[in-house]
Amino acid sequence: MVINYSLPKLFYSAMFAPMTGTNKNTLKPDTHSIPQPVIVLVNPQMGENIGATARAMLNCGLCHLRIVNPRDGWPNERAEAMSSGALDLMPPVQIYPTVADAIADCHTIYATTARPRDLVKPVLNPRHAAKNITETIKSGQKTAILFGAERAGLTNDEIAFAHKIISIPLNPGFSSLNLGQSVLLVAYEWSQQAFEAPEEHLPTGKSQPATAAEFNNFFNRLNEELTKSRFYRVDEMKDIISRNIKSLFQRANLTDQEISTLHGILTALTRQKNNNE
Amino acid sequence: MVINYSLPKLFYSAMFAPMTGTNKNTLKPDTHSIPQPVIVLVNPQMGENIGATARAMLNCGLCHLRIVNPRDGWPNERAEAMSSGALDLMPPVQIYPTVADAIADCHTIYATTARPRDLVKPVLNPRHAAKNITETIKSGQKTAILFGAERAGLTNDEIAFAHKIISIPLNPGFSSLNLGQSVLLVAYEWSQQAFEAPEEHLPTGKSQPATAAEFNNFFNRLNEELTKSRFYRVDEMKDIISRNIKSLFQRANLTDQEISTLHGILTALTRQKNNNE
Repeated sequence: MVINYSLPKLFYSAMFAPMTGTNKNTLKPDTHSIPQPVIVLVNPQMGENIGATARAMLNCGLCHLRIVNPRDGWPNERAEAMSSGALDLMPPVQIYPTVADAIADCHTIYATTARPRDLVKPVLNPRHAAKNITETIKSGQKTAILFGAERAGLTNDEIAFAHKIISIPLNPGFSSLNLGQSVLLVAYEWSQQAFEAPEEHLPTGKSQPATAAEFNNFFNRLNEELTKSRFYRVDEMKDIISRNIKSLFQRANLTDQEISTLHGILTALTRQKNNNE
Repeated sequence: MVINYSLPKLFYSAMFAPMTGTNKNTLKPDTHSIPQPVIVLVNPQMGENIGATARAMLNCGLCHLRIVNPRDGWPNERAEAMSSGALDLMPPVQIYPTVADAIADCHTIYATTARPRDLVKPVLNPRHAAKNITETIKSGQKTAILFGAERAGLTNDEIAFAHKIISIPLNPGFSSLNLGQSVLLVAYEWSQQAFEAPEEHLPTGKSQPATAAEFNNFFNRLNEELTKSRFYRVDEMKDIISRNIKSLFQRANLTDQEISTLHGILTALTRQKNNNE
């Protein structure tokens, strides 16, 4: 079964806190089958950064990781630990001795780098690169994104393998990103391009947006109560003030449940008033 | 002196590798003076995550960090170490006992959360939120973005302080982000909204794009050499093949320097041929 990731509701699961459970069975085949770029880490040093890379990739729906010449060999316990389970959910990481080997089956190569150096290659920001990668993949090409080692990034010789350069615009006074963060931002832009999510929505749970009739019924009742309680002291101002109050409640985009709550509030407040009188 | 961050060239310093030097003198006043949202960490536990938050913030040009009730007190050595110097470059972190205190001077509050829970509030993705925040700030309002504790995120009571919710759409099968990564993605979207960077450009260093005359001069020379060396075996095909070769070189968007190089290649190859003859 292939889940249609273009359904916004399905994909729109946004997280700032750990999920209680990750469903390996539904995730595995689906994430793997989405056409996507390959991520290539070139000469990475610390296992922690490889693990963080895997986690960031899978957060964004990428799962094909290749590593050129990892300093501490492979597999790597620290990478496993830092990946928070991502490495177990992804297809096995593939290890290569050289960049040329790692990208041999790919058609379009992107190199991530801080500065374009002396090479004349198109430099794309991550958002534009994500569009470009998505279009390239749609045309049937296999794409790879190269990330360099922690200290110095990709060498000029490594960058020379690439057709295009991806460069993240950041604060020029403080722009050092670690490897996992770099992968996260590039993968995030890809995911935002590849999957649809609504810009804004108003989830109302079990309740529904109130109908105009429900809204006006409440507002008219409020207005009558206000008139009865001599809230409108100056007759000439009544219409203006009344419209402003109506506007205030309109702006809240009330649900049917909230209209009921407001009726309850009105009942409670007028009951109290009657008791006081 | 206020540097104009809307100049793409100035801001377009993109990093995948550590910078060799961070200039405190030029950074400090400029980053601080840019109108920006305040980041509020609510009950954070680990100093490492506070440090990673500060680093991610400053990467993206944000520098106002407030913390509600940090578990391990403040200042925190682990936060210092993990911030890679960001905490030293930012104004002092402000500590508050409650969310209400931390946001007292702000007009519009955004809460980051995985799920909108039962509260009926507009839910924005980070990109739309970044636009919304930028517009809100332009209208003169002070804004704050709340991030919850590592384990469970913001509580419903904490979210209730917010006008709007920010939710990051991620892989529903593997969506756990750590605190620093969440802050990075939200801050990154803000920076992409606040600062301009070209989608794509072709840096050519000291050389210039070749003029049409330079290009045609080279191509005509190539074509003559090919004709002389009987490359075009079938006369009827000559025009088609010639146009295809021209197209190949056109597509490369050659610089004047590269045209010179190609002339050199042509000279070398024809000299060799002459010697062989």
